[in-house]
Amino acid sequence: MKSAVKKIGVLTGGGDCPGLNAVLRAVVKTAILQYGWQVIGIEDGFDGLIFPDRTRPLGLEDVRGILPRGGTILGTTNRANPFAYPVTINDETKLSDLSDQVLSRVRSLGLDVLVVIGGDGTLHIAYDLMAKGLPVLGIPKTIDNDLMHTAVSFGFDTALNTAMEALDRLHTTAESHHRLIVLELMGREAGWIALEAGISGGADVILIPEIPYDLNWIACKLQDRQQSGSRFSLIVIAEGAFPQGGKVQYLPEQDLGGPRRLGGAGEALAHALQSCLKAEVRVTVLGHLQRGGSPSAFDRLLSSRFGAMAVHAIARGESGRMVALRDQQITTVSLAEAIGKQRLVRLESDIITTALSLGICLGLDPKKIQSI
Amino acid sequence: MKSAVKKIGVLTGGGDCPGLNAVLRAVVKTAILQYGWQVIGIEDGFDGLIFPDRTRPLGLEDVRGILPRGGTILGTTNRANPFAYPVTINDETKLSDLSDQVLSRVRSLGLDVLVVIGGDGTLHIAYDLMAKGLPVLGIPKTIDNDLMHTAVSFGFDTALNTAMEALDRLHTTAESHHRLIVLELMGREAGWIALEAGISGGADVILIPEIPYDLNWIACKLQDRQQSGSRFSLIVIAEGAFPQGGKVQYLPEQDLGGPRRLGGAGEALAHALQSCLKAEVRVTVLGHLQRGGSPSAFDRLLSSRFGAMAVHAIARGESGRMVALRDQQITTVSLAEAIGKQRLVRLESDIITTALSLGICLGLDPKKIQSI
Amino acid sequence: MKSAVKKIGVLTGGGDCPGLNAVLRAVVKTAILQYGWQVIGIEDGFDGLIFPDRTRPLGLEDVRGILPRGGTILGTTNRANPFAYPVTINDETKLSDLSDQVLSRVRSLGLDVLVVIGGDGTLHIAYDLMAKGLPVLGIPKTIDNDLMHTAVSFGFDTALNTAMEALDRLHTTAESHHRLIVLELMGREAGWIALEAGISGGADVILIPEIPYDLNWIACKLQDRQQSGSRFSLIVIAEGAFPQGGKVQYLPEQDLGGPRRLGGAGEALAHALQSCLKAEVRVTVLGHLQRGGSPSAFDRLLSSRFGAMAVHAIARGESGRMVALRDQQITTVSLAEAIGKQRLVRLESDIITTALSLGICLGLDPKKIQSI
Amino acid sequence: MKSAVKKIGVLTGGGDCPGLNAVLRAVVKTAILQYGWQVIGIEDGFDGLIFPDRTRPLGLEDVRGILPRGGTILGTTNRANPFAYPVTINDETKLSDLSDQVLSRVRSLGLDVLVVIGGDGTLHIAYDLMAKGLPVLGIPKTIDNDLMHTAVSFGFDTALNTAMEALDRLHTTAESHHRLIVLELMGREAGWIALEAGISGGADVILIPEIPYDLNWIACKLQDRQQSGSRFSLIVIAEGAFPQGGKVQYLPEQDLGGPRRLGGAGEALAHALQSCLKAEVRVTVLGHLQRGGSPSAFDRLLSSRFGAMAVHAIARGESGRMVALRDQQITTVSLAEAIGKQRLVRLESDIITTALSLGICLGLDPKKIQSI
Repeated sequence: MKSAVKKIGVLTGGGDCPGLNAVLRAVVKTAILQYGWQVIGIEDGFDGLIFPDRTRPLGLEDVRGILPRGGTILGTTNRANPFAYPVTINDETKLSDLSDQVLSRVRSLGLDVLVVIGGDGTLHIAYDLMAKGLPVLGIPKTIDNDLMHTAVSFGFDTALNTAMEALDRLHTTAESHHRLIVLELMGREAGWIALEAGISGGADVILIPEIPYDLNWIACKLQDRQQSGSRFSLIVIAEGAFPQGGKVQYLPEQDLGGPRRLGGAGEALAHALQSCLKAEVRVTVLGHLQRGGSPSAFDRLLSSRFGAMAVHAIARGESGRMVALRDQQITTVSLAEAIGKQRLVRLESDIITTALSLGICLGLDPKKIQSI
Repeated sequence: MKSAVKKIGVLTGGGDCPGLNAVLRAVVKTAILQYGWQVIGIEDGFDGLIFPDRTRPLGLEDVRGILPRGGTILGTTNRANPFAYPVTINDETKLSDLSDQVLSRVRSLGLDVLVVIGGDGTLHIAYDLMAKGLPVLGIPKTIDNDLMHTAVSFGFDTALNTAMEALDRLHTTAESHHRLIVLELMGREAGWIALEAGISGGADVILIPEIPYDLNWIACKLQDRQQSGSRFSLIVIAEGAFPQGGKVQYLPEQDLGGPRRLGGAGEALAHALQSCLKAEVRVTVLGHLQRGGSPSAFDRLLSSRFGAMAVHAIARGESGRMVALRDQQITTVSLAEAIGKQRLVRLESDIITTALSLGICLGLDPKKIQSI
Repeated sequence: MKSAVKKIGVLTGGGDCPGLNAVLRAVVKTAILQYGWQVIGIEDGFDGLIFPDRTRPLGLEDVRGILPRGGTILGTTNRANPFAYPVTINDETKLSDLSDQVLSRVRSLGLDVLVVIGGDGTLHIAYDLMAKGLPVLGIPKTIDNDLMHTAVSFGFDTALNTAMEALDRLHTTAESHHRLIVLELMGREAGWIALEAGISGGADVILIPEIPYDLNWIACKLQDRQQSGSRFSLIVIAEGAFPQGGKVQYLPEQDLGGPRRLGGAGEALAHALQSCLKAEVRVTVLGHLQRGGSPSAFDRLLSSRFGAMAVHAIARGESGRMVALRDQQITTVSLAEAIGKQRLVRLESDIITTALSLGICLGLDPKKIQSI
Repeated sequence: MKSAVKKIGVLTGGGDCPGLNAVLRAVVKTAILQYGWQVIGIEDGFDGLIFPDRTRPLGLEDVRGILPRGGTILGTTNRANPFAYPVTINDETKLSDLSDQVLSRVRSLGLDVLVVIGGDGTLHIAYDLMAKGLPVLGIPKTIDNDLMHTAVSFGFDTALNTAMEALDRLHTTAESHHRLIVLELMGREAGWIALEAGISGGADVILIPEIPYDLNWIACKLQDRQQSGSRFSLIVIAEGAFPQGGKVQYLPEQDLGGPRRLGGAGEALAHALQSCLKAEVRVTVLGHLQRGGSPSAFDRLLSSRFGAMAVHAIARGESGRMVALRDQQITTVSLAEAIGKQRLVRLESDIITTALSLGICLGLDPKKIQSI
């Protein structure tokens, strides 16, 4: 195959996620083995194109042995938006547009295309850079599984298994001690992890952001369970779930003064249930544990497919597009189309029907769920 | 919802598979909680409808705690085809048609519908019983992932992770001892497990039944690897993979005199490579270990969806159909359409492209693969 | 073997712990298969001897399949001290001595010996009941590994592996995001879990109750690490660890009004480090996850040995004793001797030396550690 | 601390084993951080002192991230005895004494002490080199746990968990299909892995080299089980177990012409049981899978202690000694004393008593076991 491309750059942005290293390995191997290109690794997301000395060539040796490893060998950051970068001058911090600096860095590195691996925020930046003339190819990363234009992304399956194993562990404790245990899982806007981990981990109650919950309904259900002889219950709550009427406000991470407080949704629910049921309720917040660990088989395979097919798309001359899984095959969609659209749990989905069929309480009278 | 159905039977047939218990739990819970039906469990596949005293009512208590457990609480068997059942009279064994006996047993049990959980063979029997007037609903089970009309079935994802973890383990041994290690995985006709576990476990060579392999090509590739400084290699082979020209014959299980010999394909390859490369080659046959273990999150969820949606399909009056996953949703297809069609690895699939892009040897010159 | 014993009771008390079911299985199997005794299971610790209808015969069938399961099939509770049991009369709660009631229940059940599986608190109650004439045999349970008279008890090894796997997961996140991550583990008085999980999980700082920490020393060490190019650090803290000068007070569990607040020690440290280092610090509290899960091989074996050898000790006529692991063999020690003595980490132990040799910061200048 | 030592060499010999990398990390970190020594890594056991260019300096960076990884970054080999090394001249292979070459290499490298990590064979070579004047310090490695002078060594606990998990997996298959399943585990002379994994994995029959088995007794026990309604059985056999009267001969590995055949003991037993019981018997050979994987918490901790304390012993001037775990503390014993003594399962051990108490068949009438 012939191709005008000679050198590509690659970066990982946003929260870390199992499978990032597998994507990097596939990008590097495919670019070198199939096309003989050079690959430049950019450290810590777009920061690596803002600060000096944060890029390095990636060869086959650099990606050896990284397939089973979580995290990203390039590093990442949640913060680096070059269009609004916090710059401090004379003790005053302002958001500055450093995008031209990024573009000139890309040029001086001689990159023909930039491969951007990241979530909606990172891909948005990629899109904006593309609008200024940078050829980019996006690879979707979302541990929450909430991107619209890919059936699923990598990291989600591993997070799901981690959350399910936590439920398996809590199950025996809850049963032995006849306790109510609340497990808070990731998911600020979309309840995929809570819903799917909850079903597969045998939760009795599952609360997701898509269904504002009714505390009294939950309390009734828990009392019914108690009276029918089940002396314990497992309650899964997504971090973004909230009671009817009152959505909790989360501050953007960088504004937080203290150590970031996780567990808000879970603790709030536990407090409410405790005063309502006069029963002891324990809370566990899984937090960062969901982002770590060796990727599952599904995630390692999908990551490898994304990485390899992204390079082939570049070789075909594609630009401004994102690889995606659709109908079990890897395809590409335009970045313009892909960004800014969130895939939430549809209430008419058979997964919701399954949860209700198994007797799981979703926080609301089932009759009311369809009319949300 | 109203429904004329009052009592359903359920059985599991064929090889065991992680997720069977999760299906049973969903069937029982949905039938009882949503419709108030009775559920009768039938032991050891169709054997439970041939022999007396092999059925029992399944209540909510019977399916408590079985979600995370492998295997099937009903038992299963690979052998019980009531249309050709081995009956021994006067020391002579003949295959007899006991299907009328099965039908009259179903009638005497008062079953309105029979839920049959099994692979292609078991579903074929279900179809034949349906042709004789029995209302059935099928739930596809195939650890090899080779059924045509469902995107995937349960058990496969768990088997994949088990196989991948085995590769992770063998990797360190192979690397420390500079060895060639062959791992034989399941897959008599379809190479899905070998292909996907091989990619996700970082195998250097993957041999599947869909691509008859060329020993010399493999030997060359292994020597290239050796010469480029990689002093070890991991070779994954599906049990049904075979060299170009000579397909290995497998005897049907029941004809085997001795303990069933696994490892044929792996050992044959190891012998051939050893004499060809003058290097020590070790073989591991994963065998039954792939069928066991607690199901993964994906498999627990899919099993639960299959079980719940099968009961809802019955309530809607469906019969002679099989639940299936299509386009990420559970639907039903007619059994007539579903059986007898095997889903093999398509050589133009992006998974094959990914394997080749990563430099994995698939047993044949890539140029020849497309022309098979 | 002959024995006057005919019927034994068994209960589990205190916090749940992986291996309890394996002990119960071994007690039941040994008592029935080797001696033909009857075994009565008592539910929820000593509560089962206070409330009616909370005992049941345990046969071989009852313990089938429980070896790999966490928790206890008998249930447990942290609270039931029959010598000081909270009884509410006219809205007033008083601690009453119900020990005579317990003794008469044991007599009416016809128990020759009571097998008590529990930690120091539970064994103390057993000892006090013994003083009133009840023949007891103790089996030590302590997930914190802080009982003096047994080299180790079951549950600890499983908890250690759970904690280590959490560290493995956090490692990739910390490394990818260049973060300080604090993991709070169990251990109110003894730092065994934090120390051993910390070393085996590659922690950079480990804080245990035995070594009151110096915040400035830790901050210096973290800055040194940063300056030498290690842009992330993992900090493990036992829940009972505290800074020099100020021991944190923990309220007894039953006095807490709200949902029990875990994470005190970890959050306090994170706050302090954050203001001291001007760096973002994240906290994860492992909490109840450490108590759950299927027991490790070591724990299943030790539990089985404890259970079997406890029954043999009863058959030999022993009473008022506790089984223990000493010099790799199961022996028995007198309860009088065993209770009330806590095994803390000795600062001159080679495990402490190992941690320091690996460059791990233990919260204090090593020169000062030996002089605590 | 002062010390005349300036430079140490380190090598790993014999079969690979989880924890080797953790030992190497602790040796390197302790030598550099505590004493400022140089460490030279020697590749592939003693081969690295025979062939040129097989040594390299090991710095802190080289051991970063290897704690959780199986295998050995230095490589190993089962074959390299410098006192009897196979040398081929004119197509004729003779065993030659290359020990002087090894000694002169050590001198030219300027090594003050050689740290030898290996099993009995490797430590024997170390002892013989010591006799010729080389200062050595041994670190015991035995996945079979059969070294006399250390309570336990690293790798064993990980192998045990791997074997137990395999039994957990086989359990559900055996139960669902009502099958006899044989699992062959490591252990040529000592049955530790089979015995301990068998108990912790719930095996019904456990056969170890220390107890030559009686096929009829096993068949009777399996029939009893069948008749009491247990329609499946799990049988664990150590690779070195053999029937009464006839010990199987194993050829030394290097003499084998074909790919090394594992599974001898298991397949032999399965054949015998199959003809004896007229029942289908399946065999799984765990093989190399037992040597791989990430080390358990126990193994990572013990490895770290061994590595750190070996370096401290060198600093104290010790030589010709081996670190060992005794009474839960690390100590050293003289190599002369340590080598050539195998720790077999003692038949009067409480582990044997426990197995029998649980109703496990050990291949022989229990009355006869004590008189072996």
